[in-house]
Amino acid sequence: MKRQNDTNVIICGRSYTISGFESEEYLQRVAAYINTKNEEFKRKNFYKLLDTETRNMLMQLNIADDYFKGQEQLERMKSESETRNQDIFSLKHEAIAAQNRIEALQKELEKVKNQNFESQKTIVRLETELAERNKE
Amino acid sequence: MKRQNDTNVIICGRSYTISGFESEEYLQRVAAYINTKNEEFKRKNFYKLLDTETRNMLMQLNIADDYFKGQEQLERMKSESETRNQDIFSLKHEAIAAQNRIEALQKELEKVKNQNFESQKTIVRLETELAERNKE
Repeated sequence: MKRQNDTNVIICGRSYTISGFESEEYLQRVAAYINTKNEEFKRKNFYKLLDTETRNMLMQLNIADDYFKGQEQLERMKSESETRNQDIFSLKHEAIAAQNRIEALQKELEKVKNQNFESQKTIVRLETELAERNKE
Repeated sequence: MKRQNDTNVIICGRSYTISGFESEEYLQRVAAYINTKNEEFKRKNFYKLLDTETRNMLMQLNIADDYFKGQEQLERMKSESETRNQDIFSLKHEAIAAQNRIEALQKELEKVKNQNFESQKTIVRLETELAERNKE
């Protein structure tokens, strides 16, 4: 079982202790992301005119937008992944069919080569026989 | 160019008009997501004890956590997708090699079959010749 940690993070200038199973590195990364977003907003003139509640809503909406955009990308990747899995399935199926065809051709070739070898022996035998007849 | 819309959303019980290029359907989905999260928090006892700033921080952290988890999943999928692309590349390469092998075997088979056909003709000719000699 994962150990629960207490991590101190600074979000929007205020210090918080967060207890949870996430690593400190992860929580610092999340805090840094929120702080960067907050700093970006603070630099915008319209933001200065908003009340605290609207600012909070805007931050939440903005982070949620990043989340939803990520989810959309994830959906696209899942669909692409599904297509790729089908491609791999078809290619593996084709590879088996090709391997079977190679084995069948190799067998047939072996058989025809053996027939040819037998024919060559027959020809040598007949030619020898004929040469003997011609000598007679 | 996409048209800018004004969309009215209700977030945490307060109405906001959001101007942007996102569709109303998308913004309502994002608002619903924030509201559900807020409702979940409100049902928890510890949340009631927190000041507004900490509540906001907690909401932001929670949404950002969803975003980061999504990004991690995205990274894993990208890496899997890279592996799958390499698999597809290898399988296509193998398919070409197998096709070349099939064509080479077919050519060789054709050649050996022709040799065999010629041998059969030689055998018939020699047997006929021998039969004639035997008649003499």
